[in-house]
Amino acid sequence: MNYSFSDRVQALKPSAIREIFKYAADPAVISLSAGNPAPEAFPVKEIAEISARILQERPIDALQYSVTEGYVPLRDHLRSYLKEKHNIGREFDSLLITSGAQQVMDLFSKSVLNEGDTVLCEAPSFIGSLNTFRSYRARLRGVPMDPDGMNMDALETALKEEKNVKFIYTIPNFQNPTGITMSAEKRRRMYELAKQYGVLILEDNPYGDIRFAGEHVEAVKSFDEDGIVVYAGTFSKVISPGMRVGYCVAPQEIVQKMVVCKQGEDVHTTIWSQMICHEFMTKYDYEAHLERLRSVYRKKAKVATDAMDEFLGAKIRYLPIEGGLFFWCTLPEGIDAAEFSKQAVMRKVCVVPGNAFLTDDTQPSASFRINYTTPTDENLVKGVRILGELAKDVL
Amino acid sequence: MNYSFSDRVQALKPSAIREIFKYAADPAVISLSAGNPAPEAFPVKEIAEISARILQERPIDALQYSVTEGYVPLRDHLRSYLKEKHNIGREFDSLLITSGAQQVMDLFSKSVLNEGDTVLCEAPSFIGSLNTFRSYRARLRGVPMDPDGMNMDALETALKEEKNVKFIYTIPNFQNPTGITMSAEKRRRMYELAKQYGVLILEDNPYGDIRFAGEHVEAVKSFDEDGIVVYAGTFSKVISPGMRVGYCVAPQEIVQKMVVCKQGEDVHTTIWSQMICHEFMTKYDYEAHLERLRSVYRKKAKVATDAMDEFLGAKIRYLPIEGGLFFWCTLPEGIDAAEFSKQAVMRKVCVVPGNAFLTDDTQPSASFRINYTTPTDENLVKGVRILGELAKDVL
Repeated sequence: MNYSFSDRVQALKPSAIREIFKYAADPAVISLSAGNPAPEAFPVKEIAEISARILQERPIDALQYSVTEGYVPLRDHLRSYLKEKHNIGREFDSLLITSGAQQVMDLFSKSVLNEGDTVLCEAPSFIGSLNTFRSYRARLRGVPMDPDGMNMDALETALKEEKNVKFIYTIPNFQNPTGITMSAEKRRRMYELAKQYGVLILEDNPYGDIRFAGEHVEAVKSFDEDGIVVYAGTFSKVISPGMRVGYCVAPQEIVQKMVVCKQGEDVHTTIWSQMICHEFMTKYDYEAHLERLRSVYRKKAKVATDAMDEFLGAKIRYLPIEGGLFFWCTLPEGIDAAEFSKQAVMRKVCVVPGNAFLTDDTQPSASFRINYTTPTDENLVKGVRILGELAKDVL
Repeated sequence: MNYSFSDRVQALKPSAIREIFKYAADPAVISLSAGNPAPEAFPVKEIAEISARILQERPIDALQYSVTEGYVPLRDHLRSYLKEKHNIGREFDSLLITSGAQQVMDLFSKSVLNEGDTVLCEAPSFIGSLNTFRSYRARLRGVPMDPDGMNMDALETALKEEKNVKFIYTIPNFQNPTGITMSAEKRRRMYELAKQYGVLILEDNPYGDIRFAGEHVEAVKSFDEDGIVVYAGTFSKVISPGMRVGYCVAPQEIVQKMVVCKQGEDVHTTIWSQMICHEFMTKYDYEAHLERLRSVYRKKAKVATDAMDEFLGAKIRYLPIEGGLFFWCTLPEGIDAAEFSKQAVMRKVCVVPGNAFLTDDTQPSASFRINYTTPTDENLVKGVRILGELAKDVL
């Protein structure tokens, strides 16, 4: 049988990152290529307690069908939590529970994108989101990154030049892959530009709570009085990603469309997971948990920077980080990180070359991404040492 | 802000069934309108045991990110289980775990449907799937139902007349909403027609294991030697719907595209849920569980039929069932079930009028759907009695 696929999936290539993950599955390979949160930060004991309690006291609530919008106590709690702690959410907003923040990208795209619409995104940016936008046949235009976030002049040029821009996609905190945090000034400017040009902002904030140094910067959504920001959050990095619970805060009119799309996609998000998140936030000391988590990441990040300072030498520079999961390393100009990454795999270390995160991944990139949270400290140091040796040998 | 939505969501109306569910949420209303499995059939004790064991012995496996294709032990077990028990799956097939069977509808649609492609479906059919097809801007053509399934001559006419038919959508066992099971002869004929006209079949089988009377009829997928059938199954009706675990068996080439789409939708299905299903199938007596479940449904269905025989009188006929969750009731010719259902709600009983399940829900229907598995026996009898009184008063 010769299958005839939709135009949209024919345009989707298996991602470069996926190919690399195949190598990463080899247990002999040290993977610095994942995006996994540190397992030692999972509140395992608490989750086990909560789960046992739910399945004893209210099993049918956890096991029966539920409503598409999400578990009501979790929605209510999150709404007030986000408002109090981050000033996120206005009267015109609504909150929707999703199956991971990835589903926010999907449902929002499905609700607003027509074929040929343009999405402006940071260049480089998170490949998972870019692929979701592509799957709705959007045109992607990358806006270059400065050390304090998207270049605003380039953003304005793009807004002027591009037709049918539907939204700007940004990961303002500890961006994936660069680790860069957008400054408060740029957040304001981006917001004003979006308003001026009549486009929406999709603010993706999976890493905001994992700040282990420096000062918190307010979310773009915190000053959204005009209803132009769709804010995506997740429990993947602060409780557990395997549970698949994310959420979004967005104008009610948009959320209504997303709910209709979610009904047709997975009906609702796993209820057990939603109940776990709710009880963990309300019956335990959630802020103390976040503090503990930050100290785990702070310590692990120090192991990484110590190793990089010792082994990478002058030929590989890296951006300092104040949170999140990633370091962004850059080779001397003119060196292609894709080739370097291939050679690293031969030496049993896996990193993700920068081109994988570009809107056009056939473009060269001198950078690559290191994840420091998934490997053990020992493997992390060993992996970085091997990268340093490789740099010495081939550069 | 004036939001500009995608053409696809602008075409999606909030479903008639959704409006009815609003009434059903009133605790004073007896809901015969749900599609929920009977909660007394959930293996609560076993799930609690398994969950505690997993969270004690392998918490990180359950809580960390996992692969898009699904939890490997569950995939492996399901593959051999379906092959041995139902002869489902060939060398060219692959198995994908999804977030409920609803996601099979979505991922498959996303993979094969272009705007304007046609889907042939039973008329009436499951509204959730129809809305998914609509969300990819498919044209729907309904094929009328006989008491033994889709009318095959009408199917052939549709295949001849329609351009760009991508697939035939069928729920062959205890169809939602009619409860009808397609005969073995018709399954063969449908398969041959699909082959002849070069279209695929999407076989949705959520209720197949809930047969409490009569003889099992082989799945269409069991004789798929040509790779033209996409088979969707789910644990929603046999273990728990709140866990959101479904699966599909389909030619590898199709599954590959669906995996790429799933990556962009929710990355993977909740791991805890997948591990529960795997352990429950392999470490407990799964067949004995299914038998117990069937006896629960058999008993409940008898309560329903006894009440309907006593109270509905001659003016409301219903189709006998051998399994599944629904009874299909029909009013005298010319009576509109939508109006009847509205009046039922006034008397605090909620059913779903047949037009909700049509490809064009502005068409009248003389039928309505009763779910007998969600209400208590007492409410079930009371609800049916009120429907009978209403029929006596207004017909």
